[in-house]
Amino acid sequence: MIDAARANLPVGTGAASWRHRHLLDVDQLSREEVERCLDLAAELRALRERGERMDTLAGHVIGLAFAEPSTRTRVSFEIAATALGGQVVTLPFEASSTTKGESLVDTLLTMERTGVDTIVLRHAASGAPYLVARTTGLRVVNAGDGTHAHPTQALLDALTLRDALGSLQDRVIAIIGDIGHSRVARSNMHLLATMGATVRLAGPRSWTRGFEQWPGVEAHADLEQALSGADAVMALRVQLERQAGGGVPNLHEYTARWGLDERRLTLARPGAPVLHPGPTNEGVELTAELAAGSRSLIGRQVANGVALRMAVLSLLAS
Amino acid sequence: MIDAARANLPVGTGAASWRHRHLLDVDQLSREEVERCLDLAAELRALRERGERMDTLAGHVIGLAFAEPSTRTRVSFEIAATALGGQVVTLPFEASSTTKGESLVDTLLTMERTGVDTIVLRHAASGAPYLVARTTGLRVVNAGDGTHAHPTQALLDALTLRDALGSLQDRVIAIIGDIGHSRVARSNMHLLATMGATVRLAGPRSWTRGFEQWPGVEAHADLEQALSGADAVMALRVQLERQAGGGVPNLHEYTARWGLDERRLTLARPGAPVLHPGPTNEGVELTAELAAGSRSLIGRQVANGVALRMAVLSLLAS
Amino acid sequence: MIDAARANLPVGTGAASWRHRHLLDVDQLSREEVERCLDLAAELRALRERGERMDTLAGHVIGLAFAEPSTRTRVSFEIAATALGGQVVTLPFEASSTTKGESLVDTLLTMERTGVDTIVLRHAASGAPYLVARTTGLRVVNAGDGTHAHPTQALLDALTLRDALGSLQDRVIAIIGDIGHSRVARSNMHLLATMGATVRLAGPRSWTRGFEQWPGVEAHADLEQALSGADAVMALRVQLERQAGGGVPNLHEYTARWGLDERRLTLARPGAPVLHPGPTNEGVELTAELAAGSRSLIGRQVANGVALRMAVLSLLAS
Repeated sequence: MIDAARANLPVGTGAASWRHRHLLDVDQLSREEVERCLDLAAELRALRERGERMDTLAGHVIGLAFAEPSTRTRVSFEIAATALGGQVVTLPFEASSTTKGESLVDTLLTMERTGVDTIVLRHAASGAPYLVARTTGLRVVNAGDGTHAHPTQALLDALTLRDALGSLQDRVIAIIGDIGHSRVARSNMHLLATMGATVRLAGPRSWTRGFEQWPGVEAHADLEQALSGADAVMALRVQLERQAGGGVPNLHEYTARWGLDERRLTLARPGAPVLHPGPTNEGVELTAELAAGSRSLIGRQVANGVALRMAVLSLLAS
Repeated sequence: MIDAARANLPVGTGAASWRHRHLLDVDQLSREEVERCLDLAAELRALRERGERMDTLAGHVIGLAFAEPSTRTRVSFEIAATALGGQVVTLPFEASSTTKGESLVDTLLTMERTGVDTIVLRHAASGAPYLVARTTGLRVVNAGDGTHAHPTQALLDALTLRDALGSLQDRVIAIIGDIGHSRVARSNMHLLATMGATVRLAGPRSWTRGFEQWPGVEAHADLEQALSGADAVMALRVQLERQAGGGVPNLHEYTARWGLDERRLTLARPGAPVLHPGPTNEGVELTAELAAGSRSLIGRQVANGVALRMAVLSLLAS
Repeated sequence: MIDAARANLPVGTGAASWRHRHLLDVDQLSREEVERCLDLAAELRALRERGERMDTLAGHVIGLAFAEPSTRTRVSFEIAATALGGQVVTLPFEASSTTKGESLVDTLLTMERTGVDTIVLRHAASGAPYLVARTTGLRVVNAGDGTHAHPTQALLDALTLRDALGSLQDRVIAIIGDIGHSRVARSNMHLLATMGATVRLAGPRSWTRGFEQWPGVEAHADLEQALSGADAVMALRVQLERQAGGGVPNLHEYTARWGLDERRLTLARPGAPVLHPGPTNEGVELTAELAAGSRSLIGRQVANGVALRMAVLSLLAS
């Protein structure tokens, strides 16, 4: 059965094996590895659109452990794993034996012993996936840890940008908003630098402070400078549920100064696309017209999320 | 693979394609379409009983979005979709990103982009499935919206009645109880009228008021008149959890005046069957003896629910 | 399809059919039946390790009804049923129609009518699985009922002990701790007696009182006597969440008198293995070193749980 499964794996993954057991953050990946991952995602996307049956993950059990609420990321991984013939087991943290005082690691060690081989973990504590990778034999995919990292989001953003721009080399990508609380921004900054792009940050000072020192990153004091001539613009979610206050008196003021609309986007390269990791706060980070308009890649990001997660799960299992 | 899946589809669905993308209520269906749906359900029921493997829905992803608690309807759809080879994704509304303030439509648009093609929606707001059908590209199956409609329940009731009575043409069906709060009653009144049956309503005045003006419907002031010579009797659930008060001082009084038992059923046609959408309040709408006795089709209704939902999902996907 | 499924069933189950519809407790099983079940589990474990595809349960629907929280047991059954090609349906008791006042039995009767054939039930009420077995047509697997029984745990413990000791005949197994509140202990005492082993109990007096009268069981007043020359030692979980007080002033005192460590284990047969049903309270019932050390079979117990549950589900379906 394993032969059949392998025979079904797209050619791109056949030759060299993947040297990583885990996907904890994008900083572990070389540029070549990122390209290979995006190529495989594009291949799997095409196979899925043609309705091909795939069983790369036949016999594998993938545990979804979402200790923070999420619909889109959980369902995206669930569909990705099932589309590759894997079995998905959901570990409901609320209702689970963690109420018996069992720790995260103990629960996951037990899962490993039942035959779960890969865990997709979302956790409020930055670093939790590293702990699990170090203390269990599970393959770990970080599906978002605290304010630290969200590697599959950055990879699906890179796939979406590469589709739109051809390449990321020497492209200028503006990231607008709450950088400081955003694991999406951190992973994107790492990945875009790896891919040869320049990142421009803009947002309330208390939310961007310190990031100007990252390699390949420029911090701008106003939105206009950041947008000027940019090849693509990524708006971040204002995390209402985590609001630490700090520097943003209210949403109206945020939108007045940092919100994206058609007029402001005329500063960017003509036709420059707009991305957002979702869910958007309608009318806050960008106008509803922009989100639903022809420049918006928000729908493509979600669609690419499934293909990209198929690629990641395939590579880790190879 | 798609060819193989089609080859497997019972003959009844092969020729003409189904003109509806959604099943929002039964009032959208012609009599011929209802018959075709019931025929297909009967065919699929037989195939399933023979243990035939079916993969009409291979490659399809069906999302179950139950924003109101339900076990029987959710599990019925889940078994139906899986029996046809579809993948089922559960969207847990409580634990989902709706806590991030995302609207129903935004969540479902995201689901569509991940590859979900059909959504089975139960929602407390009458009309919610219409909104989703209008604003997303998803196929929508209404699994009960507020007090408005519950089309698959009415269709499975029609299948159960047709099995028992041969045809619904010119049959007299008595529906007893809380018509006003019941989406089951509304969808049944539409469907039975379409199928040529006469509906007699009876229940507390405040619960039946206004319905006497529906086409093909007679409202009766007492139970005896409604039952007299009826071909089948359908008791509705007294919705204790929605009790609006209105006209029914207490359950004892309800049962004394409107509860069904063997003695009262002697007024109906000899052997007339009894239906109830479940779950019953034991001893309130009908006696335990009647519910468990030979006239009761309650068990058949549940069993037919799976076959009927298989038919609906097949038709929408055709 | 049924033939294909049967062809796939390991030889051990082919000849004689299994005379039990349910697994309610181990006291219903003869020694030969236990051996057959353990043999089949070992066979299925080997097939699964070789990556063989199995579809013994193709066409079967297994409902998981966990009315008490559990991760390891639920996931273990879920992986077992899916590994055999069965469809798993989860019945979430909290969110289910039991909020409409429907009883356990009514809910499960409805499940039976939708096509669920086997129910795996965990329930806080001792005896609940017996009620379900008596009043529905479902096959019932007791996954733990109150303080009464946990038959699959005892069977997986027996498999783990047989692997380690070769046979259970005339072996001495010490069970330490909270016997009185433990369904694990009760099922183990029955099963070990059936298999010809001697059970020694030790723990706080109020937790062991009365069990000295069980056949094949010796109750000891101190830990040292119970461990002396024992072939294996099983520590029970101190059920902090059920603490009835009774006789144990505090955990420190418990650990000082009844906790297992390397030094105390020198009293047992050299190399005698240590078991624990999990989750452990670290440092309470046994030291972390012991739990993670070479004598510990805790990981094997969990791994064997999947194979053993595959065997049970196969036998009930045969």
